Amino acid sequence: MISKNKTKYIQSLSRKKEREELGIFIAEGEKLITELIKADFSIDLLVTSSADLAKKMNHISEVIIGDESEMKKISLLKTPSSILAVVKIPVKNALPDPLPDDLIIALDGIQDPGNMGTIIRLASWFGIKNIVCSTNCVECFNPKVVQATMGAIAHVEVTYTELDSFIMRALKEKRTVYGTLLEGQNIYTSDLEKNGIIVLGNEGNGISPDIEKLIINRLSIPSFGPKNKTVESLNVSVAAAIVCSEFRRR
Amino acid sequence: MISKNKTKYIQSLSRKKEREELGIFIAEGEKLITELIKADFSIDLLVTSSADLAKKMNHISEVIIGDESEMKKISLLKTPSSILAVVKIPVKNALPDPLPDDLIIALDGIQDPGNMGTIIRLASWFGIKNIVCSTNCVECFNPKVVQATMGAIAHVEVTYTELDSFIMRALKEKRTVYGTLLEGQNIYTSDLEKNGIIVLGNEGNGISPDIEKLIINRLSIPSFGPKNKTVESLNVSVAAAIVCSEFRRR
Repeated sequence: MISKNKTKYIQSLSRKKEREELGIFIAEGEKLITELIKADFSIDLLVTSSADLAKKMNHISEVIIGDESEMKKISLLKTPSSILAVVKIPVKNALPDPLPDDLIIALDGIQDPGNMGTIIRLASWFGIKNIVCSTNCVECFNPKVVQATMGAIAHVEVTYTELDSFIMRALKEKRTVYGTLLEGQNIYTSDLEKNGIIVLGNEGNGISPDIEKLIINRLSIPSFGPKNKTVESLNVSVAAAIVCSEFRRR
Repeated sequence: MISKNKTKYIQSLSRKKEREELGIFIAEGEKLITELIKADFSIDLLVTSSADLAKKMNHISEVIIGDESEMKKISLLKTPSSILAVVKIPVKNALPDPLPDDLIIALDGIQDPGNMGTIIRLASWFGIKNIVCSTNCVECFNPKVVQATMGAIAHVEVTYTELDSFIMRALKEKRTVYGTLLEGQNIYTSDLEKNGIIVLGNEGNGISPDIEKLIINRLSIPSFGPKNKTVESLNVSVAAAIVCSEFRRR
């Protein structure tokens, strides 16, 4: 049984303020939680409606068995999962100096949790270990982001920082910084550096002017529809996918 | 002012049953509605809180001006737009015989409205005019789908049909049918026919067994992360984007 206090505590973690104060986030579903455990995330508390799962996870310090109606109360999903974990947010290391010699994604003001989660997931797929976010991006431990990563949050380092300083530092280290913009060079025929920095902008407004002026290498994904019968842009996670695919396929 | 009856009527269109019975869907936002008008969709009713927009759209038979609190009541969006349209679902023509000689996307059991909308949007970007859906896919006039298309619903033909019959027909017409599967040929080095049929599967289960056995050309997007530290799959709209980009870039 899940006590009233525990129920309230878990419910409170749906709010950013509580998560940040306590350094805790919520993950739901066996696959996601298994990935977090494999990656040495520290699990404070597991709640499950499955006796089998409780047994399998008996190395966790605190495991509570709840029934389905109790799971429903604490879950943030439309269809509650049979297992939920309260997980410690790992202590963030600063970005290494010099920066890792590999592709890095930089996000400028990504607001939608689904997009953020999808981008973390595809970064993992393409073996990109670092995502650098402007401080006004949605928080990567937001429950909707965590779920949309499908476990990739365990493998990708997401760092929040002043994006302009980060880009200036990358430029000083002689890294090539690419921006995806509506007006840019055709990405299919552009030279792409294996250790480039890829900047992607906000859903509605794209890359902010302060960041854009730091970008010399402007890339765009060509559109193939007739001008007056085509949407004006791609969804940012779709653009991210195509750009990462292009950098990796060469 | 928006009458109680009109408010109730518009609210009822959030339900699939009502939309289908009346052959009507809802679109919100100036850009989306403008795209629909340009593409000759028939607008039954416009509701707006902007006198300017009401003037601009005065060729529409019925335009109602409502205040913001009234807009909030009828809107399905978190942040209501200043304009909402009640639009006739166009009469569907059967797929041409023979099939159009161009790339066609076939969707097998896509459930998530966000994915469906994103796929319609990227199809438009890549100049793909036809999407064929299995009958268990989410309805393309679902309001969440319509909004996620960002206007592309005006330019892409979405047809619902028995997918196995459609694929057998395409094969009979000597078209090459490609499936995106986890185990398949590397898409970056595969031959891709300019007029291929691209089959994409359900979010959780992929392509269904009945459809999969009709597919000879199996494609996969290679993963670049270390095996034990990488997510197992990509989101379906992300996979769709990379596959469409590969077909078009050659």
